[in-house]
Amino acid sequence: MAPRSNYKIPKIPEMTVRRLSVYTRCLLQLEEDGVKTISSQALAERFGLNSAQVRKDLAYFGDFGVRGIGYYVSGLKAELQRILNLDREWQVALVGYGNLGSALFHYKGFARQGFRIAAIFDDDPAKVARSVDGVPIFAMRDLPAEAKTRNLQIAIVAVPADVAQTVIDKLVAAGIKAILNFAPSRIKVARDVRLRNVDLSIELETLSFYLAQGAR
Amino acid sequence: MAPRSNYKIPKIPEMTVRRLSVYTRCLLQLEEDGVKTISSQALAERFGLNSAQVRKDLAYFGDFGVRGIGYYVSGLKAELQRILNLDREWQVALVGYGNLGSALFHYKGFARQGFRIAAIFDDDPAKVARSVDGVPIFAMRDLPAEAKTRNLQIAIVAVPADVAQTVIDKLVAAGIKAILNFAPSRIKVARDVRLRNVDLSIELETLSFYLAQGAR
Repeated sequence: MAPRSNYKIPKIPEMTVRRLSVYTRCLLQLEEDGVKTISSQALAERFGLNSAQVRKDLAYFGDFGVRGIGYYVSGLKAELQRILNLDREWQVALVGYGNLGSALFHYKGFARQGFRIAAIFDDDPAKVARSVDGVPIFAMRDLPAEAKTRNLQIAIVAVPADVAQTVIDKLVAAGIKAILNFAPSRIKVARDVRLRNVDLSIELETLSFYLAQGAR
Repeated sequence: MAPRSNYKIPKIPEMTVRRLSVYTRCLLQLEEDGVKTISSQALAERFGLNSAQVRKDLAYFGDFGVRGIGYYVSGLKAELQRILNLDREWQVALVGYGNLGSALFHYKGFARQGFRIAAIFDDDPAKVARSVDGVPIFAMRDLPAEAKTRNLQIAIVAVPADVAQTVIDKLVAAGIKAILNFAPSRIKVARDVRLRNVDLSIELETLSFYLAQGAR
């Protein structure tokens, strides 16, 4: 295994980045199962991936395969985590502590990948100044100060659609440049801000539309 | 407002379907705020949509605008809900009752849109035969019988990556043709099965990658 050190990252397709994330998860699983080495074919077969795609995606970052052996599971996992910057802890702000916000807060998958929800923001007077599992809930007006103090770098937004743009504008003004938005709303942000939109109900509603089409 | 009744649905782009879902949410919000009518421009401005896109998307299904008035908020909302088949209740199976499964179960957004989780499946002996808020937890071997009895039509999959394909094969064999998969795994299904993949951590990890790129 000879990963390039100090690699210059060329323009990486976003789908490649997303797949690295999938590969990392697969390697974690293999590691838990005690698998030490695996070929790209075996990796692809076990997880329903495309082995040529796996090799092509990894080739952006280095030459991780060893002839006759394949990949060292733990070594490759560590490399991918480093590339994805998962070998560090990110401080995450959660904005909106309704049903979805609460579900996301309790979802352990984020913490496991190094995303630590360090502060919650919600303007509901019944919630402000409380704390959940040791994480404080602040009013939105405290955002600029808390973002600085707590070094918040990523925000998860789980507020109603019609306040999402306002909330996200405030996050950006407070210096947060990476936002995962669960509000079903089209949001505009400056070019240097990374915004990802996820809407859980939309996924189900799309299924509903096509289900009924099939029934017609 | 003159929606075509018994419209023949032409091939609708999936992005249009997803946007209908967004529009429905916006209209619900307007209705809650007591807004009776709205122009496509005002709708677009308030929610950060594209007004030409709104008109084009709606045109697939009928002519909903009224000259000089715009859209009747409640009427259009009801029409879109009917088109998306949200005017009925879908029976949903939740497979996997770990942290994410539990978070999804408690997410109220699904029920509000007519998606009722009617049965949970998990092979953990500590969970089987229990129930949560009145919803029973079954072992996977009970799936074929329960799918029939309970008329399960949609499944939400929240199991580990390496068992996702097996679980989804069983769902399809049990007659479930619409699946929302949260397992970070590439899944193969037959053409007549609608599969949507969502991976929450991948979204954050993609942000993490680009955040650190910016810092380099």
